[in-house]
Amino acid sequence: MEKIALIGSGLVGQAWAIVFARAGHEVALYDASPMTLEQAEVTIASRLNDLTRFKLIDDPDSVLGRISYAIKTSDAVAGARYIQESVPERLEVKREVYKDLDRVVGDDTIIGSSTSGIPASAFTESLACRARCLVAHPINPPSVTPLVELCPAPWTDATAMDYVFELMTRVGQSPIRLKKETPGFVANRLQGALLSMALRLVEDGVCTAEEVDIAIRDGIGRRWSFIGPFETIDLNAPGGIADYIDRYGPLYEEIERSTIAPLDWSPALARRLEAERRERLPADRLSERSEWRDRRLMALAGHNRAADEKIGK
Amino acid sequence: MEKIALIGSGLVGQAWAIVFARAGHEVALYDASPMTLEQAEVTIASRLNDLTRFKLIDDPDSVLGRISYAIKTSDAVAGARYIQESVPERLEVKREVYKDLDRVVGDDTIIGSSTSGIPASAFTESLACRARCLVAHPINPPSVTPLVELCPAPWTDATAMDYVFELMTRVGQSPIRLKKETPGFVANRLQGALLSMALRLVEDGVCTAEEVDIAIRDGIGRRWSFIGPFETIDLNAPGGIADYIDRYGPLYEEIERSTIAPLDWSPALARRLEAERRERLPADRLSERSEWRDRRLMALAGHNRAADEKIGK
Repeated sequence: MEKIALIGSGLVGQAWAIVFARAGHEVALYDASPMTLEQAEVTIASRLNDLTRFKLIDDPDSVLGRISYAIKTSDAVAGARYIQESVPERLEVKREVYKDLDRVVGDDTIIGSSTSGIPASAFTESLACRARCLVAHPINPPSVTPLVELCPAPWTDATAMDYVFELMTRVGQSPIRLKKETPGFVANRLQGALLSMALRLVEDGVCTAEEVDIAIRDGIGRRWSFIGPFETIDLNAPGGIADYIDRYGPLYEEIERSTIAPLDWSPALARRLEAERRERLPADRLSERSEWRDRRLMALAGHNRAADEKIGK
Repeated sequence: MEKIALIGSGLVGQAWAIVFARAGHEVALYDASPMTLEQAEVTIASRLNDLTRFKLIDDPDSVLGRISYAIKTSDAVAGARYIQESVPERLEVKREVYKDLDRVVGDDTIIGSSTSGIPASAFTESLACRARCLVAHPINPPSVTPLVELCPAPWTDATAMDYVFELMTRVGQSPIRLKKETPGFVANRLQGALLSMALRLVEDGVCTAEEVDIAIRDGIGRRWSFIGPFETIDLNAPGGIADYIDRYGPLYEEIERSTIAPLDWSPALARRLEAERRERLPADRLSERSEWRDRRLMALAGHNRAADEKIGK
């Protein structure tokens, strides 16, 4: 199995290390900050314990054994067929990192970026290796959430997309293949559309932010966690999705007409939401709650796996 | 415990019968069609078996024993403190049914409508009992999905809203309380916003409908099934929701600017989606797949209950 290099060892890079190492790949982790790299070693070990507890990994030690830590970029990428870049989400940082990578990568090395918002065309245009660069955007943490959005720059080779799609499938992720660049890719465009509507409902005084969370969590979000929005409506009318659009299209058009004005994501709006959320969860408990969320995500991943087997996919 | 009357015995009314009867209420079911009423008795029994198999009900026989079937509206509502109306989704049908109910209901009887798209103001204005009428919209089936959207007409008494909120909480549902009428209430406005964006992504050739389903199902939908969209972003930036909006607000505004044009839910669009879905699921397997979905929803409800206890809520 090919060697994988990970550039950037924050939370995202750490989770990628687990994804590739548990699938049997040798993984070399690099970070510009030695402290971050040291921290990564500690965090990865504790994450592997959680994953083992939730029966998502059998043999944490052999996974750990496949992860090494490099103090130079060139050592990390030496002999690597694939590089997953997860450096901070700032354009100038990406540009610097890719300029360095361009000098040291092999002729058939492919580079995927974990960026959630910057298209590959913004930081790869001038590179010799630009045809082998693309976005491979995960949902955190990729060690628990399988979606990976693959998005090419205009100059990305189809063969590079093919390779990363096949690699991600092989290591147990769920890749989708965007045809072209679009702000927010697919997942954040969908999330953004739902958040915009949610914010309008709160701003218009229809309901509270907490009630929006209940509406999704105890309602439609239950379906979306194992069938997507299209299969959901396909099963919500006796005659399937066309029948559903016949029945509810007019209602949705009425909803659209009543919500066309663009939303201002203003600081004032942020302050109001912050105030409501902090009443439910004090700032000093955010990280503890995030750890709870990751444990729930692991339990859900285990449940989905068992349900796929017992009830069917 | 107060007696509950259910007007309309289709799939929604049947699920409501289980919700109230399993909580210990005497339930009287009525339908204008005797055949539908007979069918309901059969379906409810088989649904109770499923719920028992998934450990969501202990004693199906005692639940069955609390459900009776009335051949006249007046018999069903006699002595009922609450009526849940689940007749077909057509304005003229609702108006007729409520005119009948207005003649026979007691002075303190409250009526909630299961309508997913018609505001209570459209069919209760001229009624003597209009102050005690409101929408109590479930997500199907309410016996498995707890959300109930309570929406008042302009003339609905706050005490009627209070009563239904308390009743729904008591029987184990998750009610939210809308402050005013709005097309699609909350859940379908959120679903509609996400679907509109999903349809644009497919129409613009960014990805397929199947890839949209994967993006939600194997991505962000995992979070939304146990924390809502606002808690999700509150936990997605170290500093909480205001910090998140600082970081990603500009991206979401860019997304909004690129998707302001209203979407045409055209028959042509419906046909294209229908074609893609039918490739994945032939029309003659829709009902079988819907039963699979309901079993997965039951398994998920059981998982969520267990996870709430083991890992915390």
